[in-house]
Amino acid sequence: MNFASDNQYGVHPAIMAALDEANSGTATSYGGDPWTEKAEQALSDVFERKVQAFPVVTGTAANALSLSALCPSYGAVFAHAEAHSNCDECGAPELMTGGAKIIGLDEPGGKITPAAIKARLATFIRGVHDPKPAAVTITEASEYGTVYTPAEVAAIAEVARAHGMGMHMDGARFANALVSVSASPAELTWKAGIDVMSFGATKNGAMALEAVVFFDQGLAEEFGFRRMRSGQLLSKSRYLGAQMIAYLKDGLWLDNARRANAMASRLADGLRSMPGLRLPVPAEANEVFAIIPKELDTLLKAQGVIYHEWPAGGPEARDLGLEEVFVRFVLSYATPPEDVDKLLDIIAQRAKSAH
Amino acid sequence: MNFASDNQYGVHPAIMAALDEANSGTATSYGGDPWTEKAEQALSDVFERKVQAFPVVTGTAANALSLSALCPSYGAVFAHAEAHSNCDECGAPELMTGGAKIIGLDEPGGKITPAAIKARLATFIRGVHDPKPAAVTITEASEYGTVYTPAEVAAIAEVARAHGMGMHMDGARFANALVSVSASPAELTWKAGIDVMSFGATKNGAMALEAVVFFDQGLAEEFGFRRMRSGQLLSKSRYLGAQMIAYLKDGLWLDNARRANAMASRLADGLRSMPGLRLPVPAEANEVFAIIPKELDTLLKAQGVIYHEWPAGGPEARDLGLEEVFVRFVLSYATPPEDVDKLLDIIAQRAKSAH
Amino acid sequence: MNFASDNQYGVHPAIMAALDEANSGTATSYGGDPWTEKAEQALSDVFERKVQAFPVVTGTAANALSLSALCPSYGAVFAHAEAHSNCDECGAPELMTGGAKIIGLDEPGGKITPAAIKARLATFIRGVHDPKPAAVTITEASEYGTVYTPAEVAAIAEVARAHGMGMHMDGARFANALVSVSASPAELTWKAGIDVMSFGATKNGAMALEAVVFFDQGLAEEFGFRRMRSGQLLSKSRYLGAQMIAYLKDGLWLDNARRANAMASRLADGLRSMPGLRLPVPAEANEVFAIIPKELDTLLKAQGVIYHEWPAGGPEARDLGLEEVFVRFVLSYATPPEDVDKLLDIIAQRAKSAH
Amino acid sequence: MNFASDNQYGVHPAIMAALDEANSGTATSYGGDPWTEKAEQALSDVFERKVQAFPVVTGTAANALSLSALCPSYGAVFAHAEAHSNCDECGAPELMTGGAKIIGLDEPGGKITPAAIKARLATFIRGVHDPKPAAVTITEASEYGTVYTPAEVAAIAEVARAHGMGMHMDGARFANALVSVSASPAELTWKAGIDVMSFGATKNGAMALEAVVFFDQGLAEEFGFRRMRSGQLLSKSRYLGAQMIAYLKDGLWLDNARRANAMASRLADGLRSMPGLRLPVPAEANEVFAIIPKELDTLLKAQGVIYHEWPAGGPEARDLGLEEVFVRFVLSYATPPEDVDKLLDIIAQRAKSAH
Repeated sequence: MNFASDNQYGVHPAIMAALDEANSGTATSYGGDPWTEKAEQALSDVFERKVQAFPVVTGTAANALSLSALCPSYGAVFAHAEAHSNCDECGAPELMTGGAKIIGLDEPGGKITPAAIKARLATFIRGVHDPKPAAVTITEASEYGTVYTPAEVAAIAEVARAHGMGMHMDGARFANALVSVSASPAELTWKAGIDVMSFGATKNGAMALEAVVFFDQGLAEEFGFRRMRSGQLLSKSRYLGAQMIAYLKDGLWLDNARRANAMASRLADGLRSMPGLRLPVPAEANEVFAIIPKELDTLLKAQGVIYHEWPAGGPEARDLGLEEVFVRFVLSYATPPEDVDKLLDIIAQRAKSAH
Repeated sequence: MNFASDNQYGVHPAIMAALDEANSGTATSYGGDPWTEKAEQALSDVFERKVQAFPVVTGTAANALSLSALCPSYGAVFAHAEAHSNCDECGAPELMTGGAKIIGLDEPGGKITPAAIKARLATFIRGVHDPKPAAVTITEASEYGTVYTPAEVAAIAEVARAHGMGMHMDGARFANALVSVSASPAELTWKAGIDVMSFGATKNGAMALEAVVFFDQGLAEEFGFRRMRSGQLLSKSRYLGAQMIAYLKDGLWLDNARRANAMASRLADGLRSMPGLRLPVPAEANEVFAIIPKELDTLLKAQGVIYHEWPAGGPEARDLGLEEVFVRFVLSYATPPEDVDKLLDIIAQRAKSAH
Repeated sequence: MNFASDNQYGVHPAIMAALDEANSGTATSYGGDPWTEKAEQALSDVFERKVQAFPVVTGTAANALSLSALCPSYGAVFAHAEAHSNCDECGAPELMTGGAKIIGLDEPGGKITPAAIKARLATFIRGVHDPKPAAVTITEASEYGTVYTPAEVAAIAEVARAHGMGMHMDGARFANALVSVSASPAELTWKAGIDVMSFGATKNGAMALEAVVFFDQGLAEEFGFRRMRSGQLLSKSRYLGAQMIAYLKDGLWLDNARRANAMASRLADGLRSMPGLRLPVPAEANEVFAIIPKELDTLLKAQGVIYHEWPAGGPEARDLGLEEVFVRFVLSYATPPEDVDKLLDIIAQRAKSAH
Repeated sequence: MNFASDNQYGVHPAIMAALDEANSGTATSYGGDPWTEKAEQALSDVFERKVQAFPVVTGTAANALSLSALCPSYGAVFAHAEAHSNCDECGAPELMTGGAKIIGLDEPGGKITPAAIKARLATFIRGVHDPKPAAVTITEASEYGTVYTPAEVAAIAEVARAHGMGMHMDGARFANALVSVSASPAELTWKAGIDVMSFGATKNGAMALEAVVFFDQGLAEEFGFRRMRSGQLLSKSRYLGAQMIAYLKDGLWLDNARRANAMASRLADGLRSMPGLRLPVPAEANEVFAIIPKELDTLLKAQGVIYHEWPAGGPEARDLGLEEVFVRFVLSYATPPEDVDKLLDIIAQRAKSAH
């Protein structure tokens, strides 16, 4: 029973088949192959406009490189305090931007707000002693499994634009957000003011594939140099293109996301009925956060349930008791429904026996 | 009446005289001159041990370079959220370290605590996804004009050491702290666990002089390269050495600091007796922070009083009213006592007339 | 007929099969999977000692990250002037090291010599105004398809060690060099003084796989942070491990290299007998460099032969005529022998008709 | 007798007097003072157009920061192989640009040519694998004491512009070049195509003062952030402004340069008549390069003559004999004529006695 991360599940068979199929003959390297071109076209179709897409192999690379296109070395990026780009990338954005500062906003539910950005901007009264506010990044779905609506994205983008800042979306779980919020890809991104996004596929069925997608062509112009020097331009690029084509084909990406989200709802619904634990944030995508008794944590681990403890830094866990643990369950397109049921069953049994 | 900053006052006459005196004949450049050597010796005398001192021209350079000697590009530096290195240097530490992360701790009174560091370290549970905790930096006197005692420094250094982190002290106002806390330079620094410090002189009477002082010789070994490539190795280095020699001679630096601190006490004592304003932090060195009515702020400015509004980000100003302003008065060795009295008088007159 | 690069050929079937096989069930992400562990063990076996191996997806990443472990931001790396790390990585080493300088040595045949390094070191007489000499990198096989013998590697490493510099080997075509020089992997690397290498597999049959291999354990200690922040730590790491295991299994890597080298010899031998063209460097691995008439260049392209013109910067092309082109043919494990023969046939026909 | 460097001489009395004079009362810090404003105005007058000037304290900082305004992290800067920015700054340009590459052109006489730039650009055929050509920097006067004419500057700038590259001039010895070439400051800079320059004053009589001068206002826009984060924005900025005002007042800078150049001519003329030594480059500004017998080198040092050996990397010293040394004599505005005569006398005596 693995709820540690969606990246612990394998490659979707259709994507693996596409890799096999691409493995024939020679192909121009470094992005000059037809798969890369078709993948960009497929993304343009998905987003209902011409986009420029740069495939890379990790979400960290996609985020850090995206931000480097928006933010100069002397700039500042506004992000949620627990954003992947701020907390999980060992300083990759700092590396790729040449030392920009990420300003973490410690808002509840994993989502930042126009008000929080404005309040923080109001402290930028030191001229060149402050870094230059240059970008805002939001995570869709967020690190807490919550989802921004198109209107929420647009409201943040409006503040960004008003202050001359670019807008980035970390879409490592974009598909999960999309099917949750019932918007079109265009509505949730460029129509709402996003300039560049990290379009994730790895967590949702690909092998190693994210794309930096530019809606603003000007920003993309010299981006090829940045990707190259970060070591993210693959020589055998066809295998990234092939993954993307298969990922998008016939809505595979949305089907996978729907399955993962459905599993998350199943788990969240089940947990919500259990005594002695609580869900501090709604499970809007494919992640479920819970505060559980340490005793239950011990029991679950003993039963072979795999999941991560979550750093208790943010507002969600401010009332964490000494005998409690803050944990995260992630659901994948490939999570067996039985695993969810078994997990709920263990918890239910314990609740019963505790009586 | 200038209370904007101690750096708005000029160069102490004795230091200016020393510059004049050094201006004769030729001297080896880039630190090979006798002034530089004597200055290092004078600092060694002050600290009661052999130190290695690298003069630079700004506190920003001193801090950022110091941190680059302690913290790798993939590391994290723990600092107060409002530390100069975090808020006032436009990302200089990020530049000099190659992109390290500064972890801002939002503690009251401008001072961080062992508990706050430990609590933040407890969230570093992601392995290489977190940056490597590498250094702690404290500001002495702090950005809020408060002062760490030797025991407080030692307690923080103990946590740092226990986690393999180096200790840096931003001593832009070190002299002011020193005379406030009644400790020896050694007791307040290396005896309390400091590895490297920014030894400031500019704010306390020099023209442009800070020194990166290493108590740990190993750390200093390759530091010359770092200073050089930051553009901080002056060709006519004798003029930095001469400033330092004069600054330390016959206790000039301590006398200056005592005068500045006395002015701050005079102001703080005066303000404390006024109605309608409050001092959220004690004035332990040469800075006085106050929350004052906007109306008074307008009046003071109209009367030609110069001072800075302070960004209301931290805990000190959390109860700031809509009709209030958070301001800072900085006192210099050269601030005329009459200016303090005049300022107090304006405020007193207004209080009276408000009756 | 594709001779543009070995990276334009696909993935070896045995490696593709290994990817398929690895695609089952869940696996710990970010390198915690058993494939990653087994791959490191397989590399340790190959090198006859415990190594620490960090898989990444490009040679650029492997080189730049390797150098960042050897060379500080204020350091210098000695390389051949036309080394991949100096000419083909868009400044990736500069990015990953935080701005180190690569000192290009313009030696004939793509190989640097102890004498050239010493001569360049002799110009480092400026103290901290020069960067600190920190590393030497050699490419095995070189960018000109030549190969260093173990004795040559050792002689360079001796100079490096004598000056406190670390030794890196760019082994993007390590297998091709190895089978050419008839040494063991250990003899050609750590026994000859190599501290860290880029162990390439992509060009020789893998999909996207290079490993940074440390022979010096101390250097590896904090390397995980560097890889992470460069965006090169894959979440679904099992697919890199699986590639490596298959690549090394039953000597597949050496068989592939032997086939590619044999194709290169076949081509070089054929070309050498042709009038009107010349081979400025011996074809010791799987690359053949030739200076050919522009007219032949036009003819070959018209016949659909794909290959790259080579930048005529180095000593090899100093006598390049105005009507000549400097070109490179790369041979792959998968190059059909018929393609080589067809290419030779075109050239031979032209020679005949020119008579 | 000191010919080691012009930076080993002191501060001109008029500039020292200006520092004394500025040392009165309070002044807005960080460039908000009237001296800074007047200095910028004085530079605008000198250059016959509105310039934006950013004072810094070293030539290394001026060069590295200038280049960071012209060249992105993924860019390339074309420079003479022995340019200060390439050889004497320990990688400062790499630091400030975030890792750009400096392409050293190994041309005779310290000067690069349009042809050399074009030839090197012709090797940039690798697309994003090459860095983006972004800037050309020339040194005026050059590291070999030679001078570019306005026409030569313009010819280089034309190539730069044609390839989308910006033009920087390292004017650490700009005054010496100017009086040598008999052009106006405008003619030698922006009228010839320079976008930004390092305007040096330290070597020619100031204490520590260079200015980054922008002729292109757009480039200057965000430069304040760059200067700040490099630690080069001085709090007591008035003392830089005061130096600049005095430096430019009544042509002091040109008078100083004329004196230094005259001393160099006197020395070069004298040396040219001596047997057994040779001057590989003409002494057009205030530096004299000579190849002298080791025996003479020993004798001079024994007599207390101070000067530097020069790294024998470039074409000037390619015929250096085993018993010869390549040396540099630098002349200052303050070099006593008697010292020149004494030096010549020592050499003449030796020549005589050798007979």
